[in-house]
Amino acid sequence: MEKLTLVKVGGKIVEEAASLKQLLADFSQIEGYKVLVHGGGRSATAIAAKLGIESQMVNGRRITDEETLKVVTMVYGGLVNKQIVAGLQAIGVNALGLTGADMNYMRSEKRPVKDVDYGFVGDVKEVNAGLLADLIAKGVVPVLAPLTHDNAGNMLNTNADTIAGEAAKALAKHFDVTLMYCFEKKGVLLNETDDESVIARITPELYQKYVTEGIISGGMIPKLDNSFEALNAGVKQVVITRADLIHTEGGTKISL
Amino acid sequence: MEKLTLVKVGGKIVEEAASLKQLLADFSQIEGYKVLVHGGGRSATAIAAKLGIESQMVNGRRITDEETLKVVTMVYGGLVNKQIVAGLQAIGVNALGLTGADMNYMRSEKRPVKDVDYGFVGDVKEVNAGLLADLIAKGVVPVLAPLTHDNAGNMLNTNADTIAGEAAKALAKHFDVTLMYCFEKKGVLLNETDDESVIARITPELYQKYVTEGIISGGMIPKLDNSFEALNAGVKQVVITRADLIHTEGGTKISL
Repeated sequence: MEKLTLVKVGGKIVEEAASLKQLLADFSQIEGYKVLVHGGGRSATAIAAKLGIESQMVNGRRITDEETLKVVTMVYGGLVNKQIVAGLQAIGVNALGLTGADMNYMRSEKRPVKDVDYGFVGDVKEVNAGLLADLIAKGVVPVLAPLTHDNAGNMLNTNADTIAGEAAKALAKHFDVTLMYCFEKKGVLLNETDDESVIARITPELYQKYVTEGIISGGMIPKLDNSFEALNAGVKQVVITRADLIHTEGGTKISL
Repeated sequence: MEKLTLVKVGGKIVEEAASLKQLLADFSQIEGYKVLVHGGGRSATAIAAKLGIESQMVNGRRITDEETLKVVTMVYGGLVNKQIVAGLQAIGVNALGLTGADMNYMRSEKRPVKDVDYGFVGDVKEVNAGLLADLIAKGVVPVLAPLTHDNAGNMLNTNADTIAGEAAKALAKHFDVTLMYCFEKKGVLLNETDDESVIARITPELYQKYVTEGIISGGMIPKLDNSFEALNAGVKQVVITRADLIHTEGGTKISL
């Protein structure tokens, strides 16, 4: 199978003109087939505020009422997505912006109300990667906004990390997928006070060892659990790295 | 060649939940391959007003400064487009929302400043319909927002009638295209005070005759000139009709 790199970047980097431009230049240098997944939370919060809509976050997730859903649909699916697509086209990358509703590539269900009512937030139920894979094989580079739909007419707000993981798993049937998560550090650190102490490779055995030794802890544990889940579902490799290193061999490589 | 119907609807009908639902139901009943082109001006004006941006129209076109470009990118490419796409998916139509930047399907150039500086408004220069035609042949139904790009990183606001005409001409290389313009009347009227006096068919000869006799005048002349231009460029038939009649044999059919 051909190699495909799926890069997930947070909102901040795609929401400032200078950092977006650098990111797209770095992304364009990744060899082989590729996909970009983006956030956009800061822009959504800013536009919502201008529209007089207060942004309410619980456990890092946006409470998405009807008005907020309109804002994220506009901002993620329109403003941020199309700025990325136009920016990629300008440097010769044949980008195609998508939400889960487009070609029904990702269907979700409104999250059931338990302790918290997140509103119009979707949990992914089904990924149809066939048409996406055809387009990728023709040189198209999908740019995925953090939005899905319920196949009953409603858009749903969906976490970009989840979109990236689910898309990577579905595309793993068609390509050798490397799933790349960008965060603010160069990778998973052996010593969290030393930014240069990047762990080059993590296997399940090493993961257990690092957790037991207390080297890996806190917020990195769900990140790595999700990485191993993706690997167990067919993704070839997960890389945790910094956005400016996506076109290099840097970062932490996670594999089975 | 297979038959394809490209329907252009204005903003109003897609911006109200009830009329949108009816339109999508009617659209879904059109047989064969299809494409939908939509406006969204009222929503753009409303959101712009809420954001404190005044909408300035000259000759029916929106003056598009940098802030207004962000609004139309959000509203046309995000809000309106994705509501249509999600609505079509809900009734089994495999819709794909697109701006001209997506797959670089429609490139434009910023309109030169003459008497009026329209700002970020694009005049269409190039349509790449190949990938679009492949997708249509696979059952995908493109939903085209009134936005193009300049292939230099900028989105550009582009009239939906123009998008419809240019897309129809480019797709005419791949399909037998019927281009359908919806407006508030059932078709071109023989007697403008009688809504039922729809002219069933207009040919170039009849067009000359009606213009000479004063039956066709005013705003209908540029509409028909554009229709004949599309026909001369390979479009098989142009239909001018009312939105609730798109799935019927009603309206005025224009052909060479």
